[in-house]
Amino acid sequence: MGEFDEATAVAARDDGGWRGTLAEGWDINGVPNGGYLLSLVAAGLRESAGRPDPLTVSMHFLRPSAPGVVDLDVHPGRQGARHATVAGTARQGETAVAQAVATFTDLSTAGDPHRVDLEPPELPDPGECVQRRGLASSGIGQKVELRLHPHDTGFVTRDPSGDPLVRGWARLADGRPVDTLALLLLADAFPPAVFNAGLPVAWVPTVQLTVHIRARPAPGWVRGRFRTRAVTGGYLEEDGELWDAAGDLVAQSRQLAVVPRPR
Amino acid sequence: MGEFDEATAVAARDDGGWRGTLAEGWDINGVPNGGYLLSLVAAGLRESAGRPDPLTVSMHFLRPSAPGVVDLDVHPGRQGARHATVAGTARQGETAVAQAVATFTDLSTAGDPHRVDLEPPELPDPGECVQRRGLASSGIGQKVELRLHPHDTGFVTRDPSGDPLVRGWARLADGRPVDTLALLLLADAFPPAVFNAGLPVAWVPTVQLTVHIRARPAPGWVRGRFRTRAVTGGYLEEDGELWDAAGDLVAQSRQLAVVPRPR
Repeated sequence: MGEFDEATAVAARDDGGWRGTLAEGWDINGVPNGGYLLSLVAAGLRESAGRPDPLTVSMHFLRPSAPGVVDLDVHPGRQGARHATVAGTARQGETAVAQAVATFTDLSTAGDPHRVDLEPPELPDPGECVQRRGLASSGIGQKVELRLHPHDTGFVTRDPSGDPLVRGWARLADGRPVDTLALLLLADAFPPAVFNAGLPVAWVPTVQLTVHIRARPAPGWVRGRFRTRAVTGGYLEEDGELWDAAGDLVAQSRQLAVVPRPR
Repeated sequence: MGEFDEATAVAARDDGGWRGTLAEGWDINGVPNGGYLLSLVAAGLRESAGRPDPLTVSMHFLRPSAPGVVDLDVHPGRQGARHATVAGTARQGETAVAQAVATFTDLSTAGDPHRVDLEPPELPDPGECVQRRGLASSGIGQKVELRLHPHDTGFVTRDPSGDPLVRGWARLADGRPVDTLALLLLADAFPPAVFNAGLPVAWVPTVQLTVHIRARPAPGWVRGRFRTRAVTGGYLEEDGELWDAAGDLVAQSRQLAVVPRPR
């Protein structure tokens, strides 16, 4: 039992919905991290689904949330033989903050065939990477320990690489193992790749985030690679991959975020 | 007014929901195409949102649908200044067939900054590509005219390229212009890229499909590129891009699909 479990605990309501609490300390400048909100909502929907692993989770962010109680209204989908799908609307008081659909399954048995035309990122050892824990102006930096590739940390000193790419190691700071639920957190815990593009972009609120869980992760550090390929029309996409210590692809993420117009 | 408009028409129900009809002839082997179902559901949610353009649409497919009436139960999200988000559960009778969340906006005014690290696919002229209209064993092949890159059609003759890639031109067969709603259709209208991988994969039912609309398309043919990078654990992901006749990126898609275990 770790901090992540406490922070994603949910209690049943009488009407089939769930209630949890967005804990203090998982924020970026006071706003709970998007991956953390996703994890809490998925924890509730997972109870409705009755399956152990999120397989694919889609969330649309409606407005910034705040630490405190979150109610999750559940919209039943299907309980099938292999998959269970359920949708939900997350509210704080009467104010909707996010809407999600999630499909759950049991990932304990993998299937064939296998072909992965991607490689895990090449990273220096964690000790030779740049530690973000305690450096970020945010609580989430205390909960998720990041060790970033030195090539990808130029944005911190206003010397971006020019390449909208962020790679690094990640784990939960308290040592709680990363499971398929915690992968949802890690899928949105790295600094935005666009910060290294050299564009006038200071913050990028997420509109939509989809995470596909591809396998249960082996114990140990998770490696992440996040890249933005298209900044256009006032929005950007960021694609991410998470790899486990055994070198297996364990999650793919994609988000669409607003690129606020420079003021 | 074209066939696509008729096939995605919705009527208001008294309770805030919508009712439409999955028309005959937009199917693959009798099952309405996923992109078509997505378009019909998005057409209903768009009415609830009151904004002209889908910006980002997430759909989870619960079971195969069938031609006939579809009811869309609406789960209200938020009407904001820039975005409106709404969720929905699509039912046929009492049976849920899909759940979706969609965010709508007005894409008539684009924003800065601009950086796209992707290129439209290089394609021979449409006349030198392989016409799929009328060739596919499906109705959708009559509604969407595809001209595929000759390199990418080997799967048709059981001579796949080995490269899980499908590129080609697309337009609506009746000449109806492609708008942001029809991009949702085209995002799932190409043959699966995995068919060119040379793996024992005969069909790939979609579990989840997200489409991000990046711009309103210029008139003319749309170019598509779809690639699968990870077949693992009984699932595959397929990423797609759609480009308009002006060479601009107009949509990005990603889907997770089941890879049925060979029998």
